[in-house]
Amino acid sequence: MTSNQFWRLNHHPQGTDFAGALSLESETLAPLAQGQVRVATHWLSMDAGTRMWMGPRTDGYQPPLPLGTAMVGLVLGRVSESRDPAFPEGALVRGFGQWAEVATMDPALSGLTVLDDTVADPRAHFGELGMNAWTAYVGVKEVAAAKPGEWLVVSAAAGATGSLVCQVARNLGVRVIGMAGGPEKCRYLTEELGAEIAIDYKAEDVAARLAAVPGGVHAYFDNVGGPLLDAVLPNMAHYGRVAVCGLVAGYNSDEPLPGPARFDQVLMRRLRIEGFFIPDFLHRGAEFMPVLREWMDAGKLKVRFDETVGIENVLVGYDRMLSGKNIGKAIVKVAR
Amino acid sequence: MTSNQFWRLNHHPQGTDFAGALSLESETLAPLAQGQVRVATHWLSMDAGTRMWMGPRTDGYQPPLPLGTAMVGLVLGRVSESRDPAFPEGALVRGFGQWAEVATMDPALSGLTVLDDTVADPRAHFGELGMNAWTAYVGVKEVAAAKPGEWLVVSAAAGATGSLVCQVARNLGVRVIGMAGGPEKCRYLTEELGAEIAIDYKAEDVAARLAAVPGGVHAYFDNVGGPLLDAVLPNMAHYGRVAVCGLVAGYNSDEPLPGPARFDQVLMRRLRIEGFFIPDFLHRGAEFMPVLREWMDAGKLKVRFDETVGIENVLVGYDRMLSGKNIGKAIVKVAR
Repeated sequence: MTSNQFWRLNHHPQGTDFAGALSLESETLAPLAQGQVRVATHWLSMDAGTRMWMGPRTDGYQPPLPLGTAMVGLVLGRVSESRDPAFPEGALVRGFGQWAEVATMDPALSGLTVLDDTVADPRAHFGELGMNAWTAYVGVKEVAAAKPGEWLVVSAAAGATGSLVCQVARNLGVRVIGMAGGPEKCRYLTEELGAEIAIDYKAEDVAARLAAVPGGVHAYFDNVGGPLLDAVLPNMAHYGRVAVCGLVAGYNSDEPLPGPARFDQVLMRRLRIEGFFIPDFLHRGAEFMPVLREWMDAGKLKVRFDETVGIENVLVGYDRMLSGKNIGKAIVKVAR
Repeated sequence: MTSNQFWRLNHHPQGTDFAGALSLESETLAPLAQGQVRVATHWLSMDAGTRMWMGPRTDGYQPPLPLGTAMVGLVLGRVSESRDPAFPEGALVRGFGQWAEVATMDPALSGLTVLDDTVADPRAHFGELGMNAWTAYVGVKEVAAAKPGEWLVVSAAAGATGSLVCQVARNLGVRVIGMAGGPEKCRYLTEELGAEIAIDYKAEDVAARLAAVPGGVHAYFDNVGGPLLDAVLPNMAHYGRVAVCGLVAGYNSDEPLPGPARFDQVLMRRLRIEGFFIPDFLHRGAEFMPVLREWMDAGKLKVRFDETVGIENVLVGYDRMLSGKNIGKAIVKVAR
């Protein structure tokens, strides 16, 4: 295959105008350089964190991608051509690569990993065994340090990471309060994900619901920041922990989110707030995977996929994820 | 002694109008109840945290003191009368008691402690061996987790806690950047407290100075919150730690301080922000005291006292401390 379609970042998006910023382009692939690997993309992962890579803000995890180059995200597929013997042709792999039919990667820079090909549905590597699952596991167990019997609140609870946070916490004996928008998502939380309490933040007084939690909230897994964080902080138990996994409420703005209105509670309640980022934990996969796999095989970790089909529809899938239209993990099926 | 002067909290102060809220009163002491102890006050400790006990806000560490009762703070003195054999007459003690010539305490509720009477200057129990020193030690070593060779920034660095933070950090091999208001305080930081860098926040561009710190700020010991915290956060190193010891910038307001403007950096730089409060660590005195005593005896921990004389002048001393007129530890000498 020498022709390839990919999404090019032409401009920094204004707010959510992604169609004005990215375009689907065709290219002819150059010969593969020594050490590189080509991956036929089966699925692309739609992740809120990638919004920052589009710019224009320069104070994110990393600088924005250069304008005029391909947009990048997590890719799941099979090696189609390889000049690195560690990634043989046909191997099921995952790594950071172009939003493209064929992603050309430098294994060391892209975190390219050969995956377990024995799972029934390879999408599990974007789901029960994927980065969102690792994030949920580390965030609940270590950063939020939630203990059995404690209350953990999670925002964006019906999303990719949130839905895994609910199940991981439940599996660890933690009592889960999920916050999501709308009755359908809230039913999903209590009926399928093990949340004891679901709060519809679009319809309910979140602070009042949290104020009624007996003993207060011990741990908060935050994916969004903004007003929900404001509602949680004054309702935390003393010595509570906040794991900051995402601040989606601010990703489409050119300005940083305002700080939490009740930051004073950090002192008054002796809280701990900690940001984390799963690429910092990639070396610990061998520790996380057996736990996640065991839960998956036992039916205690289940991911719903919100699948958009076709490389031409990537921005549809991206919008579904970023605007919260999805339930579960938003992905785009690229391979035809 | 049956007559006693004490400061009564009549109203919740409006801002810094303490004279309108408290008055010096005389009383005749009632007979001492079983289990209680009376302490002839030698010195009172002036601490910013007590501002919250005056109200009207109810979301501090503890509810405000009841109006019409004596104001409370840390008292250093000698037992003058005792109905608890653990606190014999004449013993040098420290605990939370009334702003009064004679403080009547219930030992269990007031954290009353018999002190080492062999120190040359008993004020050391409000200084090198006191709660500010414990706070500095725990905050630097555990909460901010500063390691040798790292950069630690401290706000209100010439104050009671801050001046001890500088020295504790220096003694642990940590590189210290002190922030204080005015050239006299800044000279104190570099010439006497071991700070490598002093920043005069009233005259300098704090963010620009911090942006020049090679490798970024690893640890921030924050006594004030507000704009200085805003200046520090975007200049922290990845995985930096903020120990929130005080938020003095907000204590005189009826409204909570706004949250840190650059809260997004918690996620982007994977920072940890943690509030702490020394009463949570009182059980660890046996661990802290030998270290502090050794440093004091070796001349590596020195406290300057800002001493106001006379019970009638308590509000003068309180204002000096809260408005930052003091250098070092603000105390009031009560015993004549």
